[in-house]
Amino acid sequence: MIIKMSSAASDAEIAHVVERVKECGCQPNISRGVEYIIIGAVGSPDMRIQLEALRAAPGVEDVIPITHPFKLVSRQYKQGRSVVRVGPVSIGDGEVVVIAGPCSVESRAQLLLTAHAVRDAGANMLRGGAYKPRTSPYDFQGLGVEGLQFLKMAREETGLPVVTEVLSTEDVEIVAEYADMLQVGARNMQNFSLLRCLAKLQRPILLKRGPSATIKEWLLAAEYLLAGGNSDVVLCERGIKTFETETRNTLDLSAVALAKELSHLPVIVDPSHATGRRSLVPSLSKAAIAVGADGLIIEVHPEPERALSDGPQSLDLEGFATLMRHLEEPAAKLARTDAVAA
Amino acid sequence: MIIKMSSAASDAEIAHVVERVKECGCQPNISRGVEYIIIGAVGSPDMRIQLEALRAAPGVEDVIPITHPFKLVSRQYKQGRSVVRVGPVSIGDGEVVVIAGPCSVESRAQLLLTAHAVRDAGANMLRGGAYKPRTSPYDFQGLGVEGLQFLKMAREETGLPVVTEVLSTEDVEIVAEYADMLQVGARNMQNFSLLRCLAKLQRPILLKRGPSATIKEWLLAAEYLLAGGNSDVVLCERGIKTFETETRNTLDLSAVALAKELSHLPVIVDPSHATGRRSLVPSLSKAAIAVGADGLIIEVHPEPERALSDGPQSLDLEGFATLMRHLEEPAAKLARTDAVAA
Amino acid sequence: MIIKMSSAASDAEIAHVVERVKECGCQPNISRGVEYIIIGAVGSPDMRIQLEALRAAPGVEDVIPITHPFKLVSRQYKQGRSVVRVGPVSIGDGEVVVIAGPCSVESRAQLLLTAHAVRDAGANMLRGGAYKPRTSPYDFQGLGVEGLQFLKMAREETGLPVVTEVLSTEDVEIVAEYADMLQVGARNMQNFSLLRCLAKLQRPILLKRGPSATIKEWLLAAEYLLAGGNSDVVLCERGIKTFETETRNTLDLSAVALAKELSHLPVIVDPSHATGRRSLVPSLSKAAIAVGADGLIIEVHPEPERALSDGPQSLDLEGFATLMRHLEEPAAKLARTDAVAA
Amino acid sequence: MIIKMSSAASDAEIAHVVERVKECGCQPNISRGVEYIIIGAVGSPDMRIQLEALRAAPGVEDVIPITHPFKLVSRQYKQGRSVVRVGPVSIGDGEVVVIAGPCSVESRAQLLLTAHAVRDAGANMLRGGAYKPRTSPYDFQGLGVEGLQFLKMAREETGLPVVTEVLSTEDVEIVAEYADMLQVGARNMQNFSLLRCLAKLQRPILLKRGPSATIKEWLLAAEYLLAGGNSDVVLCERGIKTFETETRNTLDLSAVALAKELSHLPVIVDPSHATGRRSLVPSLSKAAIAVGADGLIIEVHPEPERALSDGPQSLDLEGFATLMRHLEEPAAKLARTDAVAA
Repeated sequence: MIIKMSSAASDAEIAHVVERVKECGCQPNISRGVEYIIIGAVGSPDMRIQLEALRAAPGVEDVIPITHPFKLVSRQYKQGRSVVRVGPVSIGDGEVVVIAGPCSVESRAQLLLTAHAVRDAGANMLRGGAYKPRTSPYDFQGLGVEGLQFLKMAREETGLPVVTEVLSTEDVEIVAEYADMLQVGARNMQNFSLLRCLAKLQRPILLKRGPSATIKEWLLAAEYLLAGGNSDVVLCERGIKTFETETRNTLDLSAVALAKELSHLPVIVDPSHATGRRSLVPSLSKAAIAVGADGLIIEVHPEPERALSDGPQSLDLEGFATLMRHLEEPAAKLARTDAVAA
Repeated sequence: MIIKMSSAASDAEIAHVVERVKECGCQPNISRGVEYIIIGAVGSPDMRIQLEALRAAPGVEDVIPITHPFKLVSRQYKQGRSVVRVGPVSIGDGEVVVIAGPCSVESRAQLLLTAHAVRDAGANMLRGGAYKPRTSPYDFQGLGVEGLQFLKMAREETGLPVVTEVLSTEDVEIVAEYADMLQVGARNMQNFSLLRCLAKLQRPILLKRGPSATIKEWLLAAEYLLAGGNSDVVLCERGIKTFETETRNTLDLSAVALAKELSHLPVIVDPSHATGRRSLVPSLSKAAIAVGADGLIIEVHPEPERALSDGPQSLDLEGFATLMRHLEEPAAKLARTDAVAA
Repeated sequence: MIIKMSSAASDAEIAHVVERVKECGCQPNISRGVEYIIIGAVGSPDMRIQLEALRAAPGVEDVIPITHPFKLVSRQYKQGRSVVRVGPVSIGDGEVVVIAGPCSVESRAQLLLTAHAVRDAGANMLRGGAYKPRTSPYDFQGLGVEGLQFLKMAREETGLPVVTEVLSTEDVEIVAEYADMLQVGARNMQNFSLLRCLAKLQRPILLKRGPSATIKEWLLAAEYLLAGGNSDVVLCERGIKTFETETRNTLDLSAVALAKELSHLPVIVDPSHATGRRSLVPSLSKAAIAVGADGLIIEVHPEPERALSDGPQSLDLEGFATLMRHLEEPAAKLARTDAVAA
Repeated sequence: MIIKMSSAASDAEIAHVVERVKECGCQPNISRGVEYIIIGAVGSPDMRIQLEALRAAPGVEDVIPITHPFKLVSRQYKQGRSVVRVGPVSIGDGEVVVIAGPCSVESRAQLLLTAHAVRDAGANMLRGGAYKPRTSPYDFQGLGVEGLQFLKMAREETGLPVVTEVLSTEDVEIVAEYADMLQVGARNMQNFSLLRCLAKLQRPILLKRGPSATIKEWLLAAEYLLAGGNSDVVLCERGIKTFETETRNTLDLSAVALAKELSHLPVIVDPSHATGRRSLVPSLSKAAIAVGADGLIIEVHPEPERALSDGPQSLDLEGFATLMRHLEEPAAKLARTDAVAA
């Protein structure tokens, strides 16, 4: 921690800060410049909060943290890359995993039709929302338990492991009963009660980045899961909120590369929510693979124009099959191997 | 709903859209321009989702919503302004309500000292967090039930009604047992499970705007509460996330004015979280009153440099008393009357 | 400057950095922590760039600047507040200055009608664009020199000093011939050629904040003017670009308070461009005054629905007169005195 | 244009709007809904501004534009893709063009060393700034004409065409004398005087996206160039300003895909400025190619830790050679062919 004091700070003010730094179990190291006095506080990282509060002490202009606030998710903590297993699927082992399915589970027929089609096209996992977080209370809120039952049927018929969102601590048990992987949605990335509850679960978690979460905040949300006992965490970049309105969100592929630089956790990309436009999904899928993502999660609907949510960004069955053929080509595969090696 | 089709759309594509608009119970109205064909779909607002999905239909370039998606919170629905009562305090009746207290309840002594001081300085309500949403799992997470008990003591000693944050549906019951008003924090603005649970409670709610929530999303979060049965909702602007890093967030006072133009609900302002800097709290407090806010919620700590959270933005007891004297002056009072009359 | 090195950095890497710090004329001061080694480089602020480049040296993880990069605009450099004189008007002396007029000068009649009306309502200066920066090349680009001539006529008839935007170094001479104050528009805030040219002019400058400029970048743009010889600079906050689309920009009143904390220059506010909505202009004008702004610049048009630019955010003549009556009331006046005293 | 009126609008107000629409040469088409009255104005796109001003008319709630505001840059205007030739290099013909070189031209030796190295590694063009836009007036501002002369030498020695930034209309002539392609920097994207001046030049232009420019604003800036007579325009995405601070900007690869969907102009990507971190440049370069970019512009410096600007994001000579070998591999090449075919 670096404490920056005004060069006009009194001796008493400096002594006070030095005293507090020592109280916090740290070693103060003073540099006097023309404009500022810098006190480096080296020592116990557990006193971060106490040291940061010194920003409120007289004569102090700023307190600048030096260490990253996350631990268990960091590459300093764990060398090598984590691989998260979801049934027979491994995420993070160098192969690109493709998760596909409808935004919402709308009916048994819609889900089964989609599940078979995405499996036949080469998808590795099935997605589908049974509990839907909707901006408006008047929009379709999901089929709930019935949706979970349809997901189970789809898994039994296709063999695809299932990921679905859980919105609330109360639903964790029932969702875990049906799903192979539980998704924390972007709006819930900092729902710490939910994170603490999922940390105790023996089930892999897909943690979406919040629309206004910095990379650090995202990794700290994952830290809640690991610190609570669940290391099977896959990060998912799905676009952030910016001033640009032509796309639904702004897909931040630099964050994918940086998250993999800072953390050992696998990172996948959701080009559907990120762009909000079906036409952009294929090219951003390729870019996600090229940047080093461990997988994709893509919205597919048999009849997008009748979808109860996210129709404009959903591929239809044929569009998804075409995309998969492109991703299966040597180019994409090699690009991938390359990215992994890097 | 306006459906924009390419002028290159085929007759079959146009006929298909017209058909779907009729299926949705709306009356299609076609205008043909040089570059685009515009189909106005007038009628049932309940078919919004179905109509929006037409963005995925062949030949359609865009679907543009015309109506606001919220109802019960709007001034169209309710003429006049809502007043929310919290014990003896009325929020939204033209008087500026000041809520003050520490970010976190840290101890009995800290809370009682602060509570007496803010009451003596003229505050109308006490704030203090017992359950704290913290970015890092290693930061102080609040005293929980013990914190609630201290808040109750403080109310009994000072007569100030208490507002405190509830993080989870599981805690709603216990928090409601101790608090006069329950706060939904910024990170939970779109925690729809929590909103649905609070909608059934007979207790006023303070709904903070999410750091990346548009004004519409904020009003729709309030709509969840009203639609679920709880009309005692106070909105709170606390800054949004932008590229500016000199302040913790960017206080959006235009949103206060606009929320009051669009909705009948009271709106208060949190200058502490918005700016993250103690020195800016007084001037932004005055600006909030001038723009027409119904109240302020301000962080106060007896010893900010030892605060377990948000020290740099907390006023100390003397700083708060000074601020209150400024706000009590005729200028601020008149400005306020003026704002209400406008 | 703080140089953060990995604790895994080799002795040679550390020695190399220490050597470079000394080459830059600074005194290195080393603190060794568990995770990081911190080297404080205290000394010549002129070597900032050279020191920052060390971020690229082996073993270095980050280089963190400690000092503010601006000098002449800072309150460290000049105690007290600057007052900028534009003809008979003083900006920054504690009185609120109101600048009003049309977005674009459209015709002699339109301008003179507006000028007389805003003067009669109490405005202190006249605004009006002769050279218009327009997003589209197909939009009205301003009347150019003819517009300047109309502005001069308006000044002669009303006595109001005139501020108008200059878009290009080539136009500086002609604009300076007609205008009392030259405006650097938001899009040109970092047009450094223009800034350097205006720095040599004996004429006050109104420097708008860029839509994505941080407060520091804004002050550094002003620093170009002061460093080049022109100290008559007034800053103008006009809203920044954020994800919120209900308002044209997001008015950042915290930036006004903070700019006045960091700099001695006067700061005014443009609520018209910031909000893009006429209905919000009065309440945000009051808030701007309450936060301590030294003035307002407001768009007024005799017939907003026929304006060639910015009609939706322009007040009509009556609307402006009403606003001025509100601002003249004791409340606003006192609020102001108060703000100045703070 | 869609004009949305309140259903409470009076007959006179509606008649007034209808009248104005007709005056603007458009055909009004009225749809009456429960909550709103919608007037479609179909006809002359040249009256956009006049129609938009109706937002200020009584009873009008909003005016919603339907058509894109750009023409010459659009794919509606020109089928097929534009290819821009810079000496022997073609940008937009399906091959990935790599432009490389230092941020600033610092000396003859530095530039020539870099130029030879990037040519040997496979770069197609040389970049280097002679006139530097710098946030602070105290930072290195470039060598000016001397820098241009060094660039010319480098071209003569290596055969690489040269692109360099022009900051001001006054410098256009001299820069055009030395450079093969002129760059409009991000901060100048809406410097309309400069754009108008460059539109008259017989020289290709590299137009960087502004840090807060929407895709539409970026295309409209290009429209200035095409409308003024210069069709040799290459767009360059270089990151936008968002709340994320771990990267210098947020690279918006969706914007690349979308710009190519909306416009026939070539689009290249600058991963150096976008990320501000050398370690992220290779993976984002690959992603840019995968998304369909026509080229890359990459900062390379023989000794990044002594660079006078942008050291932390510059590759050294070896790092660049390694990147080029990766991009030359079959994977990247195939990915590219694929993207072009798509």
